[in-house]
Amino acid sequence: MRQITVLLAAVVALAGVIACMAPASGQADEGAAPIFVKEIPPGYRDWRLISVAHEEGNLNDIRAILGNDAAIAAYREGKLPFPDGTIIARIAWSYVPSEENNKVFGRRQSFVPGSPPDWYLQFMVKDSKKYAATGGWGFAQFNKDGKPADEAKLKTCFPCHEPVKARDFVFTRYAP
Amino acid sequence: MRQITVLLAAVVALAGVIACMAPASGQADEGAAPIFVKEIPPGYRDWRLISVAHEEGNLNDIRAILGNDAAIAAYREGKLPFPDGTIIARIAWSYVPSEENNKVFGRRQSFVPGSPPDWYLQFMVKDSKKYAATGGWGFAQFNKDGKPADEAKLKTCFPCHEPVKARDFVFTRYAP
Repeated sequence: MRQITVLLAAVVALAGVIACMAPASGQADEGAAPIFVKEIPPGYRDWRLISVAHEEGNLNDIRAILGNDAAIAAYREGKLPFPDGTIIARIAWSYVPSEENNKVFGRRQSFVPGSPPDWYLQFMVKDSKKYAATGGWGFAQFNKDGKPADEAKLKTCFPCHEPVKARDFVFTRYAP
Repeated sequence: MRQITVLLAAVVALAGVIACMAPASGQADEGAAPIFVKEIPPGYRDWRLISVAHEEGNLNDIRAILGNDAAIAAYREGKLPFPDGTIIARIAWSYVPSEENNKVFGRRQSFVPGSPPDWYLQFMVKDSKKYAATGGWGFAQFNKDGKPADEAKLKTCFPCHEPVKARDFVFTRYAP
């Protein structure tokens, strides 16, 4: 019994060491693999509005971009780069006509959020040290079950944002 | 000197009585003229998001609908009617293609807020006694100078909202 206890303790200790090592694996080298955000920042749905947009094409969504306090403050001050601690959330819904509104308006004019697409939730989290490999931003995408996208998908985020380097890699402008 | 003082006091008192009477002028009668909201509720730009929409046609805008705490709570609880104290804000911007985004995406797909239209800001304020003539809601519209729309314009709000009586006269549904 005692030997099993000692063995179990050793296994637990080893697992603990490995778990603590894994997140740090990308930090020491400049050429290390990028690190992505794997957990949904809590409370994002209560954050304030940065802007809205409609994307046609493959996406065909209507979206809101929300920001935590650091994001909103930075936008309103007009200061770049965004400070560490900034988090920007993008929530997307499918872009659908509102039949009930159109009945009232008497014409087909009203487009509103429908059900969310599979990968409806994205974030950019600023930590210039931790996410140095991707411009200081940790990219994240989650599906309707709260599951994070795999790294193959997340690796496509930063290359698309690189052309906006002059605005600290953020496409969205503040809508006052 | 004493007579002038007495006269001034009487004038001030009379002005005070008139000022207190004017807002109440529509409350006593059921058939009274509707009352509209003439001041922008403070802090509305910091309220939380209810939903987004795009309106084609004459409006051609993209919009965000924000709500104060009472509005957000009522939406999330799914309870109707909205309680007194609910305020819903609609901010509209012109609907414009984003040339800078489209350059990056390689196609014309991105539509974002442009400059606001003249009457960009609307509110619905719930007070079932004060605004009884218009379903319990005080309607409001403001232009870019913060000036309220005239009553001729505001009188068109409620008749358009009447068809949504079953949802307490509110078109917008909550986007989770």
